[in-house]
Amino acid sequence: MANLNPTASYSLALTIELPNIAGTLANVTQAIAGAQGSFGQILLIEHNLKITQREITVEASSEEHAEKIVSAVREIPNVKILKVSDRTFELHRKGKITVESRLPLTSQSDLAMAYTPGVGRICKAIARDPAEVYNLTIKHNTVAVVTDGSAVLGLGNLGPEAALPVMEGKAMLFKEFAGVDAFPICLNTQDTEEIIETVKRIAPVFGGVNLEDIAAPRCFEIEKRLRQELDIPVFHDDQHGTAIVTLAALFNALKLVQKSLEKVRIVINGAGAAGVAIASLLRAAGATTIWLCDSKGLISHDREDLNSQKKAYAVSATGTLADAMQGADVFLGVSAPGVVTQEMVQSMNKDPIVFAMANPIPEIQPELVINDVAVMATGRSDYPNQINNVLAFPGVFRGAMDCRARNITEHMYLEAAKAIASLVNSSQLNAEHIIPSVFDKRVSHAVASAVELAAREDGVAME
Amino acid sequence: MANLNPTASYSLALTIELPNIAGTLANVTQAIAGAQGSFGQILLIEHNLKITQREITVEASSEEHAEKIVSAVREIPNVKILKVSDRTFELHRKGKITVESRLPLTSQSDLAMAYTPGVGRICKAIARDPAEVYNLTIKHNTVAVVTDGSAVLGLGNLGPEAALPVMEGKAMLFKEFAGVDAFPICLNTQDTEEIIETVKRIAPVFGGVNLEDIAAPRCFEIEKRLRQELDIPVFHDDQHGTAIVTLAALFNALKLVQKSLEKVRIVINGAGAAGVAIASLLRAAGATTIWLCDSKGLISHDREDLNSQKKAYAVSATGTLADAMQGADVFLGVSAPGVVTQEMVQSMNKDPIVFAMANPIPEIQPELVINDVAVMATGRSDYPNQINNVLAFPGVFRGAMDCRARNITEHMYLEAAKAIASLVNSSQLNAEHIIPSVFDKRVSHAVASAVELAAREDGVAME
Repeated sequence: MANLNPTASYSLALTIELPNIAGTLANVTQAIAGAQGSFGQILLIEHNLKITQREITVEASSEEHAEKIVSAVREIPNVKILKVSDRTFELHRKGKITVESRLPLTSQSDLAMAYTPGVGRICKAIARDPAEVYNLTIKHNTVAVVTDGSAVLGLGNLGPEAALPVMEGKAMLFKEFAGVDAFPICLNTQDTEEIIETVKRIAPVFGGVNLEDIAAPRCFEIEKRLRQELDIPVFHDDQHGTAIVTLAALFNALKLVQKSLEKVRIVINGAGAAGVAIASLLRAAGATTIWLCDSKGLISHDREDLNSQKKAYAVSATGTLADAMQGADVFLGVSAPGVVTQEMVQSMNKDPIVFAMANPIPEIQPELVINDVAVMATGRSDYPNQINNVLAFPGVFRGAMDCRARNITEHMYLEAAKAIASLVNSSQLNAEHIIPSVFDKRVSHAVASAVELAAREDGVAME
Repeated sequence: MANLNPTASYSLALTIELPNIAGTLANVTQAIAGAQGSFGQILLIEHNLKITQREITVEASSEEHAEKIVSAVREIPNVKILKVSDRTFELHRKGKITVESRLPLTSQSDLAMAYTPGVGRICKAIARDPAEVYNLTIKHNTVAVVTDGSAVLGLGNLGPEAALPVMEGKAMLFKEFAGVDAFPICLNTQDTEEIIETVKRIAPVFGGVNLEDIAAPRCFEIEKRLRQELDIPVFHDDQHGTAIVTLAALFNALKLVQKSLEKVRIVINGAGAAGVAIASLLRAAGATTIWLCDSKGLISHDREDLNSQKKAYAVSATGTLADAMQGADVFLGVSAPGVVTQEMVQSMNKDPIVFAMANPIPEIQPELVINDVAVMATGRSDYPNQINNVLAFPGVFRGAMDCRARNITEHMYLEAAKAIASLVNSSQLNAEHIIPSVFDKRVSHAVASAVELAAREDGVAME
């Protein structure tokens, strides 16, 4: 944990008052730097002959670290701390999304058209021709972001209320990156059948369902059944979003080391939602040798504790994760902080590819193996090659909804992965740039086009 | 039906091309006027030496009427109709609401605070202290607008998809009139227990539930149970919204005719959701003599076809609606078009008050009894005294949510009605002005304050 960098997620805004004595601000910046705080902006709030008020933004690496920084400032003589605010908490105050009207409602005629009596004509038109709901309502562009709060980020079963900030964040990303209207649905049940039933009952408003942070193995059944029983696209982002972006990055990493997907041996650590989905998509893409590990080691034929999803990937080899990694070409981690050692990476085949995607703390800190790997990626934004689902899900839904796909097929996932990989051209491709930035504006458009084309080829596009 | 006025809900935009010959536009306006169309704006789109293109907005009273107007224009020599668009349909195209991000997401640090890893700290804070969900998420300001599509406006059981345009409209009104974020939930079930169960399961995201267009008597049980089983305010607008605004208007109407609520005999026609709720609130406000009628006539003790809601209002008198109205002081209609005759109104007591609130076509057209009544009100915006729920529900939720009321009590309804009535002061009060305009900016604020105060008095405010 000592290796964590300061991050915006522990960002403080310190409002301080200083006497106008030369060197006082320097004392403050020195104290903060001494406590390993990382500076953002320093604003001048007020200034008179005697005193100056400033707001200093500082990033820390943890809550304890943030407290240490504040203490360091507090010890400087003559400096008063007027306010310490936690910018992440400030930003979340009162929620992150709103529902807005697309039209003004300022006259009787606005009301008469948008509400009664005019709206009655629209209702009748949809009752006559149900497909009109896609033309005359929000359905065509609206996604339910559904969770039961059972696997919130890497934090575990926090329940539906505590999951809501993640779902709101997801809704923001949907809008920002693909213009999709998304709304959080946090369910007060963790029963598989009840979740399926509830999503089916609220489906009329939605043009798509994005499942999120639902624990494995329940998530597999929920997704499968909803795909069968609903006529709108259903996508479990923790599975397929992760799989698409991982495959995209792997395409480019393999290009760099000049190995082929068909021939490499791939170790996946973590056999939950993400691990199983990655294995499945890699197979569809042509990978032949996939060794899946869970917390008990390699998923092998002789194990008797396997659910059906894991069983599908059982191999004859046996052993620990360390055993599995010996001689492997690719390591893909969707597991837990620090479970991989430098020795394990050094035991891999020549030019190893390591994606340590556990969040926020990877399976191994990149610094430790920087000289041992050919390509390294993580889930973090403060290292090169961030494997981030936001590269996939906004464009996947944009494409699926634009052609009213009644399903999202594996072929659509594959084409999404290829589209993402293609945005890093051969002149840009290097060990620190195997995947486009999340802020690359071309991504969601490229993904959407690829997904839409694949949907048409697969015959699932209704429009 | 012949008495219907042209309305914005049948508004057309006609794009036409005219030769530049004096008198041609006059021919067009004459033709439209001859067909009884009502003019909105006339825009100049393009103009050259030979021709002029204009867009003319015309209001009609029905679809047939709209067709008649278009035909009349089509018959004018030299005038080409380039496009006829139905403004109500245009306005609904692709839906009326959107979900927006409250914050920009344009840098890594925005992402790190609003989404992972920063959001994890917020999730943990809510998991530690569940009440924090009101501070750190959208819950405090978000209402579910829930329907099963079983009683859509006056149109009947059109199903959840066809109900969606009404729910979107409701969400617009919530935002426009009280800053509340509301989201439509249209349920694919009409089973009482399944509706209750589903609303309870999706409740974590919402700070309130507005039930809408759910048929009676199912709506009574659903509301009662959700009030008991949820800790957020639940309000069935078709019942209580209508009751609050009706009572507000009645307070002022009675003031005008100098009769007291305790002494008047009130006939309510319509014993569905609205009728029963009006009866209940009038009783709470002090009314003693309420005669409720349904399509079979007066709800009397000797009838054997009554559900429990109706039974609570049974009286010893018997007879038809016409019998009930003889000698009555007040008629409140929440029933069907044209069921009241001029003779029935003339048989009422001196200074009769008639609220004919069936929508869009009232129980009796105001023109027919204008000389027979002391005060007349309808649900329509094109007559004086519009009884419109939008005067109540936005402020009711604003008030209830601002103090985190865990329930909305009858006392809160009563205070809301008084607050609305109070906004017409005695110098403004007259037979054509018993209720404020829906665009009176003071209304939702006055209602919210009254509701919040009542919530505190009743001990249901949690904040």
